[in-house]
Amino acid sequence: MKNDSGYALLQRAFLQGLLALSLLAAWPASWAADALPSWRDGPAKQAIIKFVTSVTDTNAKTYVRPDDRIAVFDNDGTLWSEQPFYFQIYFMADQVRAAAPKHPEWQELPEFKALMARDMPALMKIGPKPVLELLAQANSGMTTDEYDKAIDDWLFFSRHPRFNRPYTDLVYQPMKELLRYLEMNFFKNFIVSGGGIEFMRVWSKKAYGIPPERVIGSIGEVKFEEKDGKPVLTKLPKLGFLDDGPGKPVGIYRNIGRQPIFAFGNSDGDLQMLQWTAAGKGPRFMGLVHHTDDKREWAYDRTSHIGKLDKALDEAQAKGWVVVDMKKEWAKVYAFD
Amino acid sequence: MKNDSGYALLQRAFLQGLLALSLLAAWPASWAADALPSWRDGPAKQAIIKFVTSVTDTNAKTYVRPDDRIAVFDNDGTLWSEQPFYFQIYFMADQVRAAAPKHPEWQELPEFKALMARDMPALMKIGPKPVLELLAQANSGMTTDEYDKAIDDWLFFSRHPRFNRPYTDLVYQPMKELLRYLEMNFFKNFIVSGGGIEFMRVWSKKAYGIPPERVIGSIGEVKFEEKDGKPVLTKLPKLGFLDDGPGKPVGIYRNIGRQPIFAFGNSDGDLQMLQWTAAGKGPRFMGLVHHTDDKREWAYDRTSHIGKLDKALDEAQAKGWVVVDMKKEWAKVYAFD
Repeated sequence: MKNDSGYALLQRAFLQGLLALSLLAAWPASWAADALPSWRDGPAKQAIIKFVTSVTDTNAKTYVRPDDRIAVFDNDGTLWSEQPFYFQIYFMADQVRAAAPKHPEWQELPEFKALMARDMPALMKIGPKPVLELLAQANSGMTTDEYDKAIDDWLFFSRHPRFNRPYTDLVYQPMKELLRYLEMNFFKNFIVSGGGIEFMRVWSKKAYGIPPERVIGSIGEVKFEEKDGKPVLTKLPKLGFLDDGPGKPVGIYRNIGRQPIFAFGNSDGDLQMLQWTAAGKGPRFMGLVHHTDDKREWAYDRTSHIGKLDKALDEAQAKGWVVVDMKKEWAKVYAFD
Repeated sequence: MKNDSGYALLQRAFLQGLLALSLLAAWPASWAADALPSWRDGPAKQAIIKFVTSVTDTNAKTYVRPDDRIAVFDNDGTLWSEQPFYFQIYFMADQVRAAAPKHPEWQELPEFKALMARDMPALMKIGPKPVLELLAQANSGMTTDEYDKAIDDWLFFSRHPRFNRPYTDLVYQPMKELLRYLEMNFFKNFIVSGGGIEFMRVWSKKAYGIPPERVIGSIGEVKFEEKDGKPVLTKLPKLGFLDDGPGKPVGIYRNIGRQPIFAFGNSDGDLQMLQWTAAGKGPRFMGLVHHTDDKREWAYDRTSHIGKLDKALDEAQAKGWVVVDMKKEWAKVYAFD
């Protein structure tokens, strides 16, 4: 079509109507079930469908207006894999290594040593803040455009060590279907991750159908200035906001401005986001991906150095939140399975 | 309809198709013109339609994919009036006055004295930061829900001194039409204001059709904690982010993550947002509302104590940005005119 404004908009709506008409005859009654083909017919899938049906039923007391159907998803370990290390750690290690010659003072920092050695237990002990601060220093002075390009290039060339595939291939197929299923039911999907916001925004639209403005993450300070006569945003050597643990409800407040009705995580870093979601009025869905599949993916929870799931698992069990047994409930993990 | 998921979704699409069919016959060719009835047929309206046509024409080099059609609007003086003082100042004065007995240390602060006296020239000289910090202290300890309720109550009972109407009646009808026109052309509209983010989020959906997650503004720090056994976000006595001047491109980066292609402001506080928009690749629209109507609204620009338009006016004239002459180009200012 030549133009998608005005008249063409109506034409499109008309064609969609015709398409809908032609589909109605052949449409199976079990539409919802078919929207989640990579989910086995277990308790998690049933709970998801039950919840979505309850908030979209206009006659039910549980009905929620489309505009308030806010769904939030953690990223690492919830929408894609996070083993053997958070994928962003590989990117960060490359960035920090490249910047290291200019920063002799880093040599003695425990976070620098651990990152260079990819010593994940040590990094987890140090916590995400010093590591993200190191990255902020490494990329200080880059414009946001240059940084986006560095991420994009890195994703293009790098491969996951176990699967020898681009990292973006390690997105969970059942979760992609869940995102589509919610979207078809007029939910607004957001990512709320402890990872760097730019790292996800570069590929979230392509991988998840989630545009940059619906990605919330940890974020470095930037400054508006002129560079070579052109206005740019330049990265400063300072972490501005850590979107992890109790930071997640704060990030939701800053970027969304209200409580979600649907939240999915996989670790203790998601606990406050799930609690904040649960605290709202009306129907709520809280879900956890439980990594139980050491064949197709990885199996880990209470004692893991990455994506530790301990307190959140207790609270989920105590409060009846949905815990997805990946091994039992996912017919497929990745699209390439 | 009973349920808006699955099968019902298709039914709705089908009905929309039928509706579109019935409308096609009667649809006027001048659809775009009719979408902006409160705009006279002047240079601003023509520039808006020309721009929107150029980015929606799929055969043109200027085509922009719907997902990248980001439009940003300043609020005070751009979407609604800001005279005799920013409307939020009235709210703030009431909040600060109520909290004053607990803060004897405020009595000597120039920002407190100016706010109590509603001395706008003094307040503008002091700048927005100390004033917003005072408000943050006044509301410290409130939960975000309590704060939203305080705003909502205040808006319900308060009246604009000149028009004796609720402040939300002072939204500009031509700008409302512009928001709808852009939306019909698959733009995503955002507010990017120096005002407090919560103050706008409470009513932006109703007044502008802009949901809370598309409102960016100055924002106080909040903390996630338990209060009476319930998870809440509590306001802290600290301004976290000032979304004004060079802060506006930073706010856009934080919440949207890419450059807008369309920006509208009305004062020097919007200059950097307009520069940042103009700096992107491809077609761009930069607009300024020029307050020239001392009968229906107010007339002010280079020397005003509120919404000073000086440097941005020079740059607009030098670079060919669109300057809307309110008196000449708006057939209507408010819906009640």
